[in-house]
Amino acid sequence: MPHSVSYGPTLPTSQAISSLRPLPAHAVRLSADGLLGGWQIRNADATLPHCISRLHTQGNLDNLRRVTGDFAGDFAGMWFADTDVYKTLEAALWERARSGGSSAFVADTAQLLEKAQDFDGYLNSYYQVDHRDRQWAELPSSHEMYTAGHLIQAAVAAARSASDTPAVQQILTVARRFADLLVRRFGTGGVDALDGHPEVETALVELYRVTGHRPYLDLAARFVGLRGHGLLGPDSRFRQRHYYQDHQPVRDATEVTGHVVRQVYLAAGAVDVAVETGDSALLNAAERLWESAIAAKTYLTGGQGSRHRDEAFGAPYELPPDRAYAETCAAIGGFHWAWRLLLATGRSRYADEMERLLYNGIAASTALDGTAFFYSNPLQLRTGHDGDDEDAPGRRLSWYSCACCPPNLARLMASLHTYTATGDPGGLQVHLYAPGTVTAGGHTIEVATAYPWEETVTISVTETTEAPWTLTLRVPAWCADAQLTVNGEPVDTAVRHQGYLGLTRTWLPGDRVELVLAMPPRLLAAHHRVDAVRGSVALTRGPLVYCLEQADLPGELDGIVLEDLELDARGPIGVITGAHPIAPVMLLTPVRAQSSADDELYLPLDAATPAATPPTAMPAIPYFLWANRAAGAMRVWIPLAPQDR
Amino acid sequence: MPHSVSYGPTLPTSQAISSLRPLPAHAVRLSADGLLGGWQIRNADATLPHCISRLHTQGNLDNLRRVTGDFAGDFAGMWFADTDVYKTLEAALWERARSGGSSAFVADTAQLLEKAQDFDGYLNSYYQVDHRDRQWAELPSSHEMYTAGHLIQAAVAAARSASDTPAVQQILTVARRFADLLVRRFGTGGVDALDGHPEVETALVELYRVTGHRPYLDLAARFVGLRGHGLLGPDSRFRQRHYYQDHQPVRDATEVTGHVVRQVYLAAGAVDVAVETGDSALLNAAERLWESAIAAKTYLTGGQGSRHRDEAFGAPYELPPDRAYAETCAAIGGFHWAWRLLLATGRSRYADEMERLLYNGIAASTALDGTAFFYSNPLQLRTGHDGDDEDAPGRRLSWYSCACCPPNLARLMASLHTYTATGDPGGLQVHLYAPGTVTAGGHTIEVATAYPWEETVTISVTETTEAPWTLTLRVPAWCADAQLTVNGEPVDTAVRHQGYLGLTRTWLPGDRVELVLAMPPRLLAAHHRVDAVRGSVALTRGPLVYCLEQADLPGELDGIVLEDLELDARGPIGVITGAHPIAPVMLLTPVRAQSSADDELYLPLDAATPAATPPTAMPAIPYFLWANRAAGAMRVWIPLAPQDR
Repeated sequence: MPHSVSYGPTLPTSQAISSLRPLPAHAVRLSADGLLGGWQIRNADATLPHCISRLHTQGNLDNLRRVTGDFAGDFAGMWFADTDVYKTLEAALWERARSGGSSAFVADTAQLLEKAQDFDGYLNSYYQVDHRDRQWAELPSSHEMYTAGHLIQAAVAAARSASDTPAVQQILTVARRFADLLVRRFGTGGVDALDGHPEVETALVELYRVTGHRPYLDLAARFVGLRGHGLLGPDSRFRQRHYYQDHQPVRDATEVTGHVVRQVYLAAGAVDVAVETGDSALLNAAERLWESAIAAKTYLTGGQGSRHRDEAFGAPYELPPDRAYAETCAAIGGFHWAWRLLLATGRSRYADEMERLLYNGIAASTALDGTAFFYSNPLQLRTGHDGDDEDAPGRRLSWYSCACCPPNLARLMASLHTYTATGDPGGLQVHLYAPGTVTAGGHTIEVATAYPWEETVTISVTETTEAPWTLTLRVPAWCADAQLTVNGEPVDTAVRHQGYLGLTRTWLPGDRVELVLAMPPRLLAAHHRVDAVRGSVALTRGPLVYCLEQADLPGELDGIVLEDLELDARGPIGVITGAHPIAPVMLLTPVRAQSSADDELYLPLDAATPAATPPTAMPAIPYFLWANRAAGAMRVWIPLAPQDR
Repeated sequence: MPHSVSYGPTLPTSQAISSLRPLPAHAVRLSADGLLGGWQIRNADATLPHCISRLHTQGNLDNLRRVTGDFAGDFAGMWFADTDVYKTLEAALWERARSGGSSAFVADTAQLLEKAQDFDGYLNSYYQVDHRDRQWAELPSSHEMYTAGHLIQAAVAAARSASDTPAVQQILTVARRFADLLVRRFGTGGVDALDGHPEVETALVELYRVTGHRPYLDLAARFVGLRGHGLLGPDSRFRQRHYYQDHQPVRDATEVTGHVVRQVYLAAGAVDVAVETGDSALLNAAERLWESAIAAKTYLTGGQGSRHRDEAFGAPYELPPDRAYAETCAAIGGFHWAWRLLLATGRSRYADEMERLLYNGIAASTALDGTAFFYSNPLQLRTGHDGDDEDAPGRRLSWYSCACCPPNLARLMASLHTYTATGDPGGLQVHLYAPGTVTAGGHTIEVATAYPWEETVTISVTETTEAPWTLTLRVPAWCADAQLTVNGEPVDTAVRHQGYLGLTRTWLPGDRVELVLAMPPRLLAAHHRVDAVRGSVALTRGPLVYCLEQADLPGELDGIVLEDLELDARGPIGVITGAHPIAPVMLLTPVRAQSSADDELYLPLDAATPAATPPTAMPAIPYFLWANRAAGAMRVWIPLAPQDR
């Protein structure tokens, strides 16, 4: 059953509704000197080993050894701690497929899982030892199917690794036995039930794609269809049905709501079901939900989740930067959702969103060294922030008691190259720009660029068939001025299809395409309904959101706190390369300090306007690089001087 | 032991640090036609009977009957459900002292408590039946002493009711037996321990004041002193020591932090301990903490608590109007804290804060009919708010699964008259203006006013001794223009002592003082560090904060949502009396609607400024009256047009 060619996550069948086709995983190689390729190396060298090490030290693997009788201690961590094992396993499998080599962790874990699994296929170290009596009895909170889903996704990675080691077979067998149990118990004619946390839907569709076994797809479709009918119980104090997205059938929903990770995982699963079952109404619903998120419930970084309470979406336009939850796993789930919609529809706005998430909401989660992580990703940290809650951080932590995010990052980064381009017999589509090579269908292109730091992307054809084919290039929505030449000849960039430029010709080795995506610094304002950032602007350049950090406060403003700065919108913004200890490209921001720090909290509007210092310049750095120096205040949204608003 | 003269809450001994002396409770009568007196009537007629009824239907009384063996069902509600009984009992006792009559609820409950109490004095219906093994074993979360504290406060109300019924004696006896148990167990030489939720401190000091029994005061002082030394355990995931104010000794703390109700109850108890033990350093610490709250952690309504997570204070200047927690109990606790500081210091700013809380943060919690309540009191409700969480409401609920607030309101309202004036042999001090009479020391004054709707307060001396005495009148800090006449003769109002005007003379019956506190509508802006309301203003008039409600949207703006309105700061603001279905005095606000509702969430700053409709006028109503009509959006802070910021 394992493929003979490796693939990445999400591989729609040939019957699926699909505009774009994923390439084999080995078709894309990202260079280590690019940002994306560098992240893959860092993931392999630091994040993934760190995750594996933590599975040992935090007790996740011992939890499974309790089931096999090989460990006598207590259960450790969250009741869904097995998922950290599965996500790390999935990451290790993607990484092994990407870079080769073997992994003792994969082999050992596969054996352990095989040994721990019940005869009937059940596997969950929390319920198998101490809580047998509650097995399947508390689905709204048990995460049993959510956990099964991550096991299945590891098996999908195994099956797509073009490897046929015993471990690959073991993982697949274990996952299928669990999936078969789910089908028997919850499939057509079985119990009408749902897991409180979606995840298994997308996993089951992927397992169907790997195995061709239709009952997996049917079960996923059943779960998507059962949601929204109150199976998770009535509303109660502090826990409403919309928390689980169980308030309304998925195909009727018009607005993202509730717990963000649940919502985006569910939506991704709904897209998978929709494309494989040809259910265009469901696909439309998923697109409509996505639009509702982008229109009023998404941070400038792509982050989602405005409330710490319930890790939830807020009301439309409720987007406080300081209390942004913007969970790392939500950003990863949003990336998966957008990728599925991109494959289904071919619309560049989904790739735009993947890019925004990747360089901002996702990238910010990981420290420079790859071994410390944010769980939530606020857009502002105040001076005086208490900073100690695990999920309201002033700094990245090396691990979490709820450690969902680090291994989720590891599995995304290990497979990142598979999201950058797609292809079909008609040509290649490049979605995310990074130095490296793409080979498919007899064509090879070489991408040279310092994107996102620099504007130019150079694509050289190094190998090609003799027939004409189309090289398709995304023009990001943030770019107001795209210039294109082929072998030095300008090409009109005004004609685009769904946000893409298409170059159809008979290519020759040595052909050279140069795309220049102008990246002037931009000042963005939010919709007037976003009360939380009224009168403020955010700095962006290319796909990157910038921020101010207390550590960069210029000497002239010594003693000032970040909250007292305002941006002088009339001043020029400089683009500076290479002069900053953290940021390869920083922006030089014209700021002034207001000097009414000791004023009363509320004063008459006509009270004297506070004096401001003379303008000076302050570095703004890419948001994703914040909190890599001394702890201190940070902000993405910068107040404008009153006269500039 | 019951007093022969009735008194209200908080009666410092003659040895206490004290600038002002509470009057006997019967010294003040508030007229039913005033706002405050009307609230007392509503409380007696509606809120208090409603609370008693709910104690029956929600199982609170049955919980106690389980202890006595008279009820066989399950325990109902929160583990601290007894406190609802005690607070309601306290309210009933204050009310009986205020208006006379008898109360079957008081008599029945007193008997029940006597019967339910353990031989050693322990009383807690949650622990006595199902959880004996955990008694005293989980103090960080058990609320056992918090519960004892509310029992003791009911007993204090009984003792101060100038009544000597069997019920009064029973309640006092039960409370003292429990207090004596606390002294034996946790007093000097006993266990070093703390309850996770402060409350017992202030209760023990009050019981000392009633009984003269020094060990109660010593225990309270011990609890205040033990806090801040880690007795409640180390920091853990999502629960840090500052949540309990256990991160730092009270006398060293410089900033309010953590769970708001815990913080303000603790601070009130610290003031009680400080004044009775002559500990001026501790009193200074309590004043310093209070200043930190007022400087950067208090909403315009007096509400406190910026975070739903942990019901907590946020970072300085973190004051989002939409996610304001501003719990009703926190406002009541803040009122108690300010009252204690007022008595200790005589500074009007504490009375100003009591006034602000009373007319805004507290008053807003209760529906017009007195039988529905807010738990949290946001300053904005958005269109599209999901509105279903108990503590993030779109409307007042008739009861709560955590029903701390309604009976807390009942006990405050039943004793409200005791907070309006103080007195000593030298004269009378009027802090809160309301129609009624004040009699003490042989003087009687009659207060006639439609405050806070109207500016004039007329005080007539109807009875007086022959010796000169001082009539002291507060000039609220919000008032920039106070005019005073005595028998028609103007008096200079510039000379004030701690914010008060003092009129010392030999008064004659028929003397008439007229104080005119100018109440022009005011536009207030927040400190520039309050990001959440930048570029917005709030409307106030006198002590009242105003708000816009969707229900008042003028016909010309049909189809507009509240989020699209902006205030035209150049337009006049009218003061209109009597024309509004809800508000006796409304403000007529010049507004425009922005018309870019469908814009993208983030746009370049230089994108065209949205068109706005022509200015029109919209009613603004007192904040405390919101949500008494159809559910809909509300906002206190109104965006200014960009050119007006």
